[in-house]
Order: sequence, then structure tokens, then C-alpha cells
Amino acid sequence: MPEAASAPSPSRALIGDSEFDRDTAVTRRGPGAYDTDLSAGWTILGAVNGGYLLAVLGRALADTLPHPDPFSVTAHYLTASRPGPAVVRTETVRTGRTLSTGQASLFQYDDEGNEVERIRVLASYGDLATLPDDVRTTATPPAMPPLEQCFGPEDGPSPVEGGSAIAGRLMLKLDPATLGWALGTPSGNGEMRAWFGLADGRDADPLSLLLAVDALPPTAFELGLKGWVPTVELTVHVRHRPAPGPLRVSITTRNLAGGFLEEDAEVWDSADRLVAQSRQLARVRLG
Amino acid sequence: MPEAASAPSPSRALIGDSEFDRDTAVTRRGPGAYDTDLSAGWTILGAVNGGYLLAVLGRALADTLPHPDPFSVTAHYLTASRPGPAVVRTETVRTGRTLSTGQASLFQYDDEGNEVERIRVLASYGDLATLPDDVRTTATPPAMPPLEQCFGPEDGPSPVEGGSAIAGRLMLKLDPATLGWALGTPSGNGEMRAWFGLADGRDADPLSLLLAVDALPPTAFELGLKGWVPTVELTVHVRHRPAPGPLRVSITTRNLAGGFLEEDAEVWDSADRLVAQSRQLARVRLG
Repeated sequence: MPEAASAPSPSRALIGDSEFDRDTAVTRRGPGAYDTDLSAGWTILGAVNGGYLLAVLGRALADTLPHPDPFSVTAHYLTASRPGPAVVRTETVRTGRTLSTGQASLFQYDDEGNEVERIRVLASYGDLATLPDDVRTTATPPAMPPLEQCFGPEDGPSPVEGGSAIAGRLMLKLDPATLGWALGTPSGNGEMRAWFGLADGRDADPLSLLLAVDALPPTAFELGLKGWVPTVELTVHVRHRPAPGPLRVSITTRNLAGGFLEEDAEVWDSADRLVAQSRQLARVRLG
Repeated sequence: MPEAASAPSPSRALIGDSEFDRDTAVTRRGPGAYDTDLSAGWTILGAVNGGYLLAVLGRALADTLPHPDPFSVTAHYLTASRPGPAVVRTETVRTGRTLSTGQASLFQYDDEGNEVERIRVLASYGDLATLPDDVRTTATPPAMPPLEQCFGPEDGPSPVEGGSAIAGRLMLKLDPATLGWALGTPSGNGEMRAWFGLADGRDADPLSLLLAVDALPPTAFELGLKGWVPTVELTVHVRHRPAPGPLRVSITTRNLAGGFLEEDAEVWDSADRLVAQSRQLARVRLG
């Protein structure tokens, strides 16, 4: 099994008391209505990260629904979110014994104070703790160098002009085989792999997995494409509570065509469990 | 390129005038409300096929939204549909220049005539005809024997007791390598592959791709599991209008664990284009 990044330090943040928890917190103002403040800390080039946004919506739905854990979550990103106040409105679609389904929308405010919908989510929740421990997964963890042989933004000059605040919130160490883009020599393979954690040391949990699947640089960079690759839709399956320690995230694109691409992400925990799988549809600018 | 199944016959159904079109037809009764009648012809062991249901909802959304083609469609299956009357209620979430987003629910009626929600869908639509023809797909079509060396339900005794009406609506020829389950010797690999078409000869179109991704036997059968594998959620990306002729559908499961599995489907057309990709989360009974 891969080694943990480091021995726990006394100041290591805990699940429930960390940057991620504070910045994804929602305050219930009434049935199905939650106020939140989108942090500027999870942006790249000023754009609020889609996985962070999904975690905010996911937290509100976890409060609304009788089941605690996202099992399958789909988000359609409608308009660009920006740091600042927002409201999440949730709806219970159906409650069952082992699964519940809900819907959620995140709104921000225009200059007149009207609500503008940023994201709509449809999700089914369950309780990961009640799942049988029968594992017949045939997928295997990605072949990656150990964490110590991988590289993050802090290890070299930033290849992304203008920087990204989110880099300060994450422990992100990319597989050198997927770092060519940062050196001007993209591999041409639609792949991106990294060791992933939170900078303050907080362990992963089902909600932070919603962030993890969308927190790596775009595979488009390794395909030699530059510029923004906005997510149209993102669907995440959370399959198991992640073990403590760093995650391995492996993303693959196989169908870049017609101005769109898909990114398939797998998230593996320190116990070699495939804890989350996602696919997103994103737009690219060709040429 | 693979051969077409047969020379077109004079009675070959056309897109717009076929069993599939008649059985997925919706009648607009007012803004955002469409009546439909779920056919008994697309059932397996009495259960209405999820892809057929998705196509019904997809047709209603195509009427509601300003863009004609599903690009990304997610359905959560809430309660079991049955043949008979239903209503689809749609909502426009956002309209843009190249993409629109909508939501749709299918309801049926309980004994008192109250509406019971069966399925909820969140989807983004666009116009496939306007996409640039730049193709950098690195995925390759599945390795499968020619259609003539593949087998369908009509080629042997039905392995599924009770039969399935849907078999009469489809041209389905399974790769022998994924047919072990029908002979009592499942391979143990989570794979299912088939040549796919509609029995009346109608060519595929973006809406029938929503059916194609969910119309094969479950990979669970090849994993040695028996019994019902109900879909919790299904997300389909439609990436290109399919060329005429039979499709190749290849489905893979790699993460059977905790009582759930994912099924990833790829649909390839006769021009070797990857025209659709999907992933569903389904429940299994272990043991």
C-alpha cells in the first residue's frame, strides 16, 4: 500500500473542522433553503472550481435527505459562479428505505438582487456504512510513481499564468508522465494523474470526493489544447467511504471530438479501494 | 467497415415512422405537459426497459427545448414504470446559444388517479449538426466477430424464463464471448457486447441511442449473478448523429462492490464513430 504523505501533525485538520468544511458550509434558513458563501479560495484563474461547488450542493442535500452519503450525483453547470453569497434550494424527490433522491439548485444574485441559477443537481443518496463489504472490483489502481516522485505547483514555476488560489488548498502531486504540458511538451495522451489531498491535512470523506474528481488540471492540457475547458455536466458515483491518507486520482479522455470531450476520473484510496468514479462532459476550443 | 445487416427492404421502417417512434411518441397537451402511453413491447420480464423510458422523456424534452439533440442526459429511476398511460412534465432550466438545459419527470397514476413520479431527468441539449467535424477520438471500436457470427435470442432456447417482449423489437446479436451466461457458463468477466439495431430496420438516431445503451443483457449475468439488476441512475452522452446501419454496443463493469455495480456502455456506428457513451449505477443482489 502507498505510504501516507507524512506522519500526522498536531495541527492536521479534522473532518468537520477544516478549510474544506468551512468553505463548503451551508446554513439552513428554512425548509429546503440554505445560505452559503462561495469562497475565493477554491478558484483557478478566478473561476470557482466545479467540484468545490458540487460539494457545497452535496452538503445541502445531505442535510435535506434522510440518507447521509451521495451515491450518484449529477450537476449541470448553467452559468459561471463567482465568490460571494449564494443560496442552495433543495427538494426531496423520493425517500426510500436504502436510497433517497433529491434535487438542488445553487443561485447567486444579479445587480438587482434577483436569483440567477448557477448549477442544478439531481442526486441519489444512501448510507455507505450499511453496504455489505463484498468487493469484486476488477479495476486496478493506476500505475503511478510514489508521492515523493510526483510534483505539484510548489515544485516549479507556475505554468498557469495568473495562478490559482485552489493550489493553496490542495496537496496535489502530479505524475511526471502527465506533466509534459507544464514544460511545453504535452504528451498527446488524454491522461492526468495525481496524488491528492487537502493542504491542511484533512482526510477525505464522501463529500470531499466530489471535489477530488474535478480538482486536477484538464486532460486537454496533455492533448496540447490551451485555454478554458468548461464543464457542461459532471456525474460522480461515490462507492465507499475513503480510508485516511492521500488519494490517487486518475483521469482519462478518449473521445475528444466535435468540440467536446469526456473526462473519466477514478479515485483510489490508501486501502486500494476504488472509492469514486466520475465522468464529465466538457467543452473545448479546437484549433 | 462492418457490413450492413442486409440490403434495405422495401418495408424497412424509417426514422419518424417506426415501432420505436410510435412507442416513444408524446402528445403535447399544454406547455410542459405531454401525454404518452408506455408500450408493453419494450419490456423484459414485465419491466419496462430503462433506455426506452429515457427515450420517451428525451422526446418530450426535445420538443420543449430550443435545441433538438440530447447531449448529456441523466435519469434517476424512482419507482417501477408499467405499460400504460403516463404524463411527462418538462421544465426549461436555461437556454443558451449552443446548449439548453431542461428537466423532465414521468408520472403514472395510482388507484386514485394521483400522479406518482417514476423517473426524473436532468439534461442538456444542443444541435449535433452544428458541431465541427474535428475527431481526435483515441478510443477504438470493440473487437467483435462480424454480425453473422453473433447470436440473438432467436438463435437458441430463451435463457430468460418468461421471455421478453423487447426481444421482438430489437435486432440483437451478442458476441459469443459474452454469451456464456446463456449456456450456464458465465465467463466471470463483466462484459457484454452486441450488434444492435431495431427489428423493423429503422436506422439509429440520437433518441434511439438512449435506448441502445440500456438494451443489452446485464453484465451481471456474465459475472455469474442472477436476478434483477435495477438501474438507480443512468447518464448518457450523445456525441454524434449515428450513421445508418447496425451499431456495436460494448458494455463493461469494473467495480462490482457493496451491492452496486457500474455499467459503462460505448456505442459505435457503422462509420466507426463513438456516437454515445453512458454509465449507469445499478443494484445487485450478492450471494
